[in-house]
Amino acid sequence: MAHRVEILSVGTELLLGSIANTDAQMLSQGLSALGLNVYWHTVVGDNPQRVEQAVATARSRADILITTGGLGPTCDDLTKQVLARAFGKELVRDPESEERIRAYFAATGRTMTENNLQQALVPQGCTVLSNDWGSAPGCAFQADGMHVIMLPGPPSECTPMFRHRVIPYLQSIAEGMILSRTIKLFGIGESAVEAQLRDEMNASSNPTLAPYAKEGECELRVTAKAPTQEEALALLEPKVEELTRRFAPLVYGVDVPSLEQVVVDGLREKGLTLGCAESCTGGLLAKRITDISGSSQVFLGGVVSYTNQVKHQLLGVPAQLLDQYGAVSQPVALAMAQGVRRVLGCQIGLATTGVAGPQRDDRDNPVGTMFVAISTPEGDYVRPLQLGQRPTRARHRVQTASHALDLARRYLAGLSYDL
Amino acid sequence: MAHRVEILSVGTELLLGSIANTDAQMLSQGLSALGLNVYWHTVVGDNPQRVEQAVATARSRADILITTGGLGPTCDDLTKQVLARAFGKELVRDPESEERIRAYFAATGRTMTENNLQQALVPQGCTVLSNDWGSAPGCAFQADGMHVIMLPGPPSECTPMFRHRVIPYLQSIAEGMILSRTIKLFGIGESAVEAQLRDEMNASSNPTLAPYAKEGECELRVTAKAPTQEEALALLEPKVEELTRRFAPLVYGVDVPSLEQVVVDGLREKGLTLGCAESCTGGLLAKRITDISGSSQVFLGGVVSYTNQVKHQLLGVPAQLLDQYGAVSQPVALAMAQGVRRVLGCQIGLATTGVAGPQRDDRDNPVGTMFVAISTPEGDYVRPLQLGQRPTRARHRVQTASHALDLARRYLAGLSYDL
Repeated sequence: MAHRVEILSVGTELLLGSIANTDAQMLSQGLSALGLNVYWHTVVGDNPQRVEQAVATARSRADILITTGGLGPTCDDLTKQVLARAFGKELVRDPESEERIRAYFAATGRTMTENNLQQALVPQGCTVLSNDWGSAPGCAFQADGMHVIMLPGPPSECTPMFRHRVIPYLQSIAEGMILSRTIKLFGIGESAVEAQLRDEMNASSNPTLAPYAKEGECELRVTAKAPTQEEALALLEPKVEELTRRFAPLVYGVDVPSLEQVVVDGLREKGLTLGCAESCTGGLLAKRITDISGSSQVFLGGVVSYTNQVKHQLLGVPAQLLDQYGAVSQPVALAMAQGVRRVLGCQIGLATTGVAGPQRDDRDNPVGTMFVAISTPEGDYVRPLQLGQRPTRARHRVQTASHALDLARRYLAGLSYDL
Repeated sequence: MAHRVEILSVGTELLLGSIANTDAQMLSQGLSALGLNVYWHTVVGDNPQRVEQAVATARSRADILITTGGLGPTCDDLTKQVLARAFGKELVRDPESEERIRAYFAATGRTMTENNLQQALVPQGCTVLSNDWGSAPGCAFQADGMHVIMLPGPPSECTPMFRHRVIPYLQSIAEGMILSRTIKLFGIGESAVEAQLRDEMNASSNPTLAPYAKEGECELRVTAKAPTQEEALALLEPKVEELTRRFAPLVYGVDVPSLEQVVVDGLREKGLTLGCAESCTGGLLAKRITDISGSSQVFLGGVVSYTNQVKHQLLGVPAQLLDQYGAVSQPVALAMAQGVRRVLGCQIGLATTGVAGPQRDDRDNPVGTMFVAISTPEGDYVRPLQLGQRPTRARHRVQTASHALDLARRYLAGLSYDL
C-alpha cells in the first residue's frame, strides 16, 4: 500500500498568521520527491486538547505523521508530551541530547536555563534525530502501524533536519517511486492548456497531467509512478518531451524556478549583458533580475524613468516622440530599450511602459495598456499588450515585467517574439 | 459563544509544496484582527472524498468555515460542488457572475472557453461575493449553525476578496465589538518590544497587547473588546497614544499599510519629489515606492547601478571614490544619493549599496554590510548597517530598502536619523 502522509504543524503563531507554514511546504516538496503522498496538512495551536484530537484524526487516516514545532523549552512546547501520551510511551531523558544541548549553548555563548534540558526528553525507544542546527532534538518511532516523526519548528532547523535526518529514515520505508516534472509556460492560461489536454488528462492515469495557474503563468505537472526510478523515468521522460515540443515556444523551461532565472542563466551561457529601462514596472523588472544571485555578472543596471523628463534626459528618448505619441506608446518603448542599451553599453536592452492603474494616464489610455520592448545587436521588437482593466496594479506590473523577461528569453533561445 | 474558525485550503499544489499556504496566513491575520479565533488550518488536495471528509471534520468542531481554492474553471476545481452537496444545496447559475466572467475575458482580451462559465455556478440562496480581481466569484452561506465562506485560491484574488467582501460579512455576525489598532515600528525587534512590555502584557487583558515580527519590522497590535464601538474605542485609544509616544521615533504609523505608503503620503503632503540610486537592492526600493498608486506624483525615477561604471556614468560618482573606498562604502553611498538628486532634479535622493550575498564582494566585505544614504536640501546622512550573514539575500535586500525608506520617513517627519 502506498504511504499516506499527514503533516501536523503545532504553533499558535501559524494560526495568528504571524508566519506562513513554510515548513509544510518544504516537507511536502521533499516528500513528493521521495514518492510519498502527502494528503493532509493540519495546523493547530499550542493547546494540548487540540493537538491530541489532531493526532487522533491523523491516526485514523494516515500512516506517516510528521509534526513540526512545539519541541522547544517553553511551557507551550507540548508536542512530545502529547504524542508520547497518545502512543502510550514514557518520556525519558536522552543523555546524548542533554550533552548536545549543553554544548550548543556553550558554542553560541548563551546562558542555558534549566528548562532547556526538558528538550532532552524523548519518547522511550525512539530514534533520536540529533539537531546540529538548534537545541531541540527531533525523534522518530513506529507504533500501531504508524510512523511518527517530530521535527523542530524554526525553518532554519526543520529544513536541514529533514534533509539530513528524515530522508534517510524515510527512504528505508518508501515503496515504489513517484517522479514529477514541471513544464513552465508563459503566454497561455491554465484553462487554455487544460482545454487542449482534456482528453489526454482523462485518458491517462500514469503519467498524470495537471495544469496550475501561477502569477500569470501556467505550470503543467507530469507525474509518473513505478516500482523503480528507471521505470518511472521511462514513463515520464517521453511525455515531458512530447508536451514540451507541443507547447513550444510557450515553454520556458522544465523544472526551472522562474523566467528571470532562465534569462540570467541564458545571458551567462552566452556571455551577454543586459540593462533595463522601466516606466510602469517601476523597478520590478530590475528587482526580479537581481533576485537571482550571480545576476551581477550579466546585469549592468537599469533606469526607472517615471517622468518624461527622465526618459529624455537619462535614456535619450527624443522629446518629439514623447510629445507626438505620449509615454505609453510603441515608439517610446522602443526608444527606451535602445536608449538603455546605448547608455549602459549592454548588448540587450529591455523596456516597459504602460498604465498600471488604477487611473488612466494623461492621454486617456485605459488601464492595462502596456508596451514591452527589446533592443539587441540583431534588431528590435515591441510587444503591445492589453492586460485589461480588471487585474490589480500589482498584477499588471508583474505581468508586464514577465512579458519583458519573455522577450529576453525568446531572444536568447532564438525563438520568434510573436505570441 | 466565541466563534471558532477553521480555514480549509483545497489544492494539490499545496500538498506538493509548489506554493506555501500564504492565503491561510493572510486570513489568519485578518481574522485575528477582527477578534475571531482561528483554531485549525487544514489542507487537502483536489480530491472530492478528502475534501468531503475535511468538511465533515470542520463541521464537528468549528462554526465558521472559510475555504480557499478550487473555484476555478478546470475539472479539479471542486470546492463548490463538494460544499454544496455537504450542506444539501443545489448549484445554480448566477447571471450576474456569468456577466462578470464574460466581461472579464472581454476586458483582458482573452478567449473565453465554455468551462469558464462553470465558475458562475453558486450554491442556491448564497450571498455571492463578486470578484473584481479575477474570474471565479466567492460565496457565503449559513447552514446548520455554520457560516461557510468560499474564496478563490490565487493570493492576488483571495487577499482583496477577504478585505472587501469577507470583512463586511464577518463584522455583521460578530458579537459585541472588537477593535484593533496596529502600531507599526521599524528599527526594533519583536523580542525587544516584548521585553519592554512584558509586565504590561501580563497585567492587561483588555485591551490586550501583542507584538508580531514581520519582514524585519515589528507590529504591535492593541485589541479591545466591549459591547459598543464607543466603549471599545474608549479602551483602545488612550493605550495606542501612550504606546505611540513611548516608542517614538521608532513608530512610523498606526494602521498604515507600509513604510513606502507613509513615505509617498509624506512627500505628497509636503509637495516634495524623490529619486533613488540602488546598488544592492537592485530596483526593489523603486519597486516598493511605485507599488503605491499615485506615487508618480512624487517619484521621479531611479537608477539601478549594478556596476561601478554605471555609478560613475549615470550618477556621477567620482571614479576616485570608487577606487579608494570601493562601491560598498559610506562615501559612495553618499555620492550616489547626491548624484541621483542632481541628475533627476528631485529634492530627496536615497541610495543603497552593500553586499546582499550569498558571496562577499570583491573587497572581501562580509555579506550583510550595507550603507543607505539620504541627500536633501538641508543636508545628507549615511546609515551604516551590519545585517549579519545569516539572513538570505532576499531578506537583506528587503531590510536595506526598508532602512532607506526609514531615512526618508524620518526626514519628512522632522526626526533624527539615528537609530
